[in-house]
Amino acid sequence: MDRLKPYLSEHQERFIKELLELLKYPSVSADPAFSQDVLNTADAVADALRQAGCDAVEVCDTRGYPIVYGEKVVDPSLPTILVYGHYDVQPPDPLGLWKSPPFEPVIRETELHPEGAIYARGASDDKGQMYMHIKALECMVRTHSLPCNVKFMIEGEEEVGSSSLEAFLKENRGKLANDIILISDTGMIAKDVPSVTTGLRGLSYVEVTVTGANRDLHSGLYGGAVANPINVLAKMIASLHDADNRVTIPGFYDRVVELSAKERALMAEAPFDLEAYKKALDIDAVYGEKGYTTNERNAIRPTLDVNGIWGGYTGEGAKTVIPGQAHAKISMRLVPNQDWHEITELFTRHFKSLAPAGVRVEVRPHHGGQAYVTPIDHIGYLAASKAYETTFGTRPVPHRGGGSIPIVPLFERELGSKTILMGFGLDSDAIHSPNEHFGVWNYLKGIETIPYFYHYYTELAKG
Amino acid sequence: MDRLKPYLSEHQERFIKELLELLKYPSVSADPAFSQDVLNTADAVADALRQAGCDAVEVCDTRGYPIVYGEKVVDPSLPTILVYGHYDVQPPDPLGLWKSPPFEPVIRETELHPEGAIYARGASDDKGQMYMHIKALECMVRTHSLPCNVKFMIEGEEEVGSSSLEAFLKENRGKLANDIILISDTGMIAKDVPSVTTGLRGLSYVEVTVTGANRDLHSGLYGGAVANPINVLAKMIASLHDADNRVTIPGFYDRVVELSAKERALMAEAPFDLEAYKKALDIDAVYGEKGYTTNERNAIRPTLDVNGIWGGYTGEGAKTVIPGQAHAKISMRLVPNQDWHEITELFTRHFKSLAPAGVRVEVRPHHGGQAYVTPIDHIGYLAASKAYETTFGTRPVPHRGGGSIPIVPLFERELGSKTILMGFGLDSDAIHSPNEHFGVWNYLKGIETIPYFYHYYTELAKG
Repeated sequence: MDRLKPYLSEHQERFIKELLELLKYPSVSADPAFSQDVLNTADAVADALRQAGCDAVEVCDTRGYPIVYGEKVVDPSLPTILVYGHYDVQPPDPLGLWKSPPFEPVIRETELHPEGAIYARGASDDKGQMYMHIKALECMVRTHSLPCNVKFMIEGEEEVGSSSLEAFLKENRGKLANDIILISDTGMIAKDVPSVTTGLRGLSYVEVTVTGANRDLHSGLYGGAVANPINVLAKMIASLHDADNRVTIPGFYDRVVELSAKERALMAEAPFDLEAYKKALDIDAVYGEKGYTTNERNAIRPTLDVNGIWGGYTGEGAKTVIPGQAHAKISMRLVPNQDWHEITELFTRHFKSLAPAGVRVEVRPHHGGQAYVTPIDHIGYLAASKAYETTFGTRPVPHRGGGSIPIVPLFERELGSKTILMGFGLDSDAIHSPNEHFGVWNYLKGIETIPYFYHYYTELAKG
Repeated sequence: MDRLKPYLSEHQERFIKELLELLKYPSVSADPAFSQDVLNTADAVADALRQAGCDAVEVCDTRGYPIVYGEKVVDPSLPTILVYGHYDVQPPDPLGLWKSPPFEPVIRETELHPEGAIYARGASDDKGQMYMHIKALECMVRTHSLPCNVKFMIEGEEEVGSSSLEAFLKENRGKLANDIILISDTGMIAKDVPSVTTGLRGLSYVEVTVTGANRDLHSGLYGGAVANPINVLAKMIASLHDADNRVTIPGFYDRVVELSAKERALMAEAPFDLEAYKKALDIDAVYGEKGYTTNERNAIRPTLDVNGIWGGYTGEGAKTVIPGQAHAKISMRLVPNQDWHEITELFTRHFKSLAPAGVRVEVRPHHGGQAYVTPIDHIGYLAASKAYETTFGTRPVPHRGGGSIPIVPLFERELGSKTILMGFGLDSDAIHSPNEHFGVWNYLKGIETIPYFYHYYTELAKG
């Protein structure tokens, strides 16, 4: 392990240059105009894996863009880490807002990044974070400190829904067999506050329609005498939360596991400035389930939000109509152990039961996904924690993400292993936005930290 | 009075022909392409008033289309009736749905009108109903049975908001001085159930906006931790009605006068088939304020309805957004004695008070109007009642209209007199729709009934 840091110092200029080269490929998976560029990027990633020391590198065809596979098997009896990443990027629009062209990477110093930040589409999401793993492998191979087996699976359709991934997993279970999955495609809380995303919320998304009369009615002639679908829908939605802002759907919380006091305490260590949070959103108060902090409400608690509502006259001026229908899109964020199919059913049954006589109610499920969690006593989490402690000098905060990353529960289901989300990006990286960038310090710190994960994970796996 | 009916019988063919001629003018006030036709129609109405026996007929210029004025003053010491009507018509679109061209009037027999119905735009609304009054005057003048003074004020902008009327009233208070205003621009319940519209509801129409964060947020990252403007708006709207479907705004009912048992009993005489009503609307139940019938709910009771609601993602599919804002258009139908300015203020104060911390609420008044009522012991109502009883053989049902006719409270304010809404149209006349028509029987029955109103009104006014 002693030779890692000197190797990194010696080669860091090249590591940066190589990333800049990779960022020049406009691998926009959403736009068919770039398809050849996306394919060329896959080849470039394959080359990089070979150069870093992978033994068996393949550009695997799928129904969409290829998945680049590579492996370095040291000893089949040792643990195997599967690294996932993606080489495709978001479209760069709106181009006019970029200070430098999205596919002509440059390094500029910023207040947050006095060491410089690499500006380019994909710098952080995910070429930069993915390439850290390739360079970490090179470091370990060249310094003879790779302690276990490693496999890479780098896809080219993450920004368009990973549609070829499930089939690839099902067809390559043997090849992809692993003990732990490692991904750098999330952020950390701050440059001096490393964090590991230990949980993601699941989702149930439905659309509801309340139908009253068979046509729009004049509110002068019918107002007060027939059920108004908008008023009824508002009443039904309002009743979905109680005075403590808990969801009132019977059975909704039945499977929710309360977090341990220890994990809540660890979560609470994350620096959080409520006043700054409110100021950034321009709100005078936060709002949510009684008994939980803001960071708990948006991460470890299930919620119900209306994402869209419409009905009646919504144009300029006034029209005295009682509409025949009113609609809403409603989503529930779920936590581990809640099953999204079951929650969708509970919602549907309950919502229909709320309808008064005089209206009909339809509930149409859109889609959903399961929540995911990595327990903080899992050896993958412990290895990551020790790795960060080694290179950052402080242990990471376990962070439960409020959103969903559907591939993570997919990996667990298809490959049977847990995922460690070891991100080195920052919220300020402007991913999916103009002027995306990735701090040079973060990039190098990632390359430095990853080998320690390998080291501690192998040690802990040996028991 | 004995010579009226024979005169009508003798001349009814001509009366019908004259109306058909008037209906040929495409007096569409909403479409500038027809402006010359609208002006020509005003002249035709002026000619008709002269021929019917008016002494002083003027086509009075306004900022918009002219108002045709005519009078027949028998004796200044006698009561004066002011007849209001309008010569402009709704646009005829969609033209393709008319069985015969809208400005080529024809008479066709229908199941409801075995005597034939006149099909043309404006046949019922309002050329046909207005022309009844001109022909009734002719009958009275030619048979020397006009018992009082009469003034006509026939405007050409009713279908576009009567925008010149208020100024005309203010500038001509002396000329328009009258004891009672008579209008035929409403319907009756059925051919054998005459009715007089004794009340109209007022209106307060507002638009509300609930603002949360300063931008749309991702529901994964913020769901459950900040106030969702749609959920909050739904809750606020829901709270505007209690379990008995009464409006919860403090002071909302303070000025509402309960109808007398006598008037409620008279109203209940109107034939009403609840099952047919539900079937026509395709609803399994009616809905409204506890303690009132459907006909009471939509006429004599104030109500609150959401006429439009929108916020968040309303397109195809799913988007997990917590919108920065949610909006609704809300209107309240008011009853006599409620002041729409006061109600708008009460609503605004109450609605803002409902906002939880974490959102800002804006209420923007759109427009409004006062409710109107003619007491059923008013001599105008009594005269109308006796007139119907004479020609229909049954006394009329006092009918409280759920909608608003803004000119009626305007007349009361500017001219200080009550209005008698003596309509002879039917709901099935298809006013504002293709194939508008007016029963020949209704037209002639109107001409027959109106002189009796003059007769009884003069008698009752003399005391």
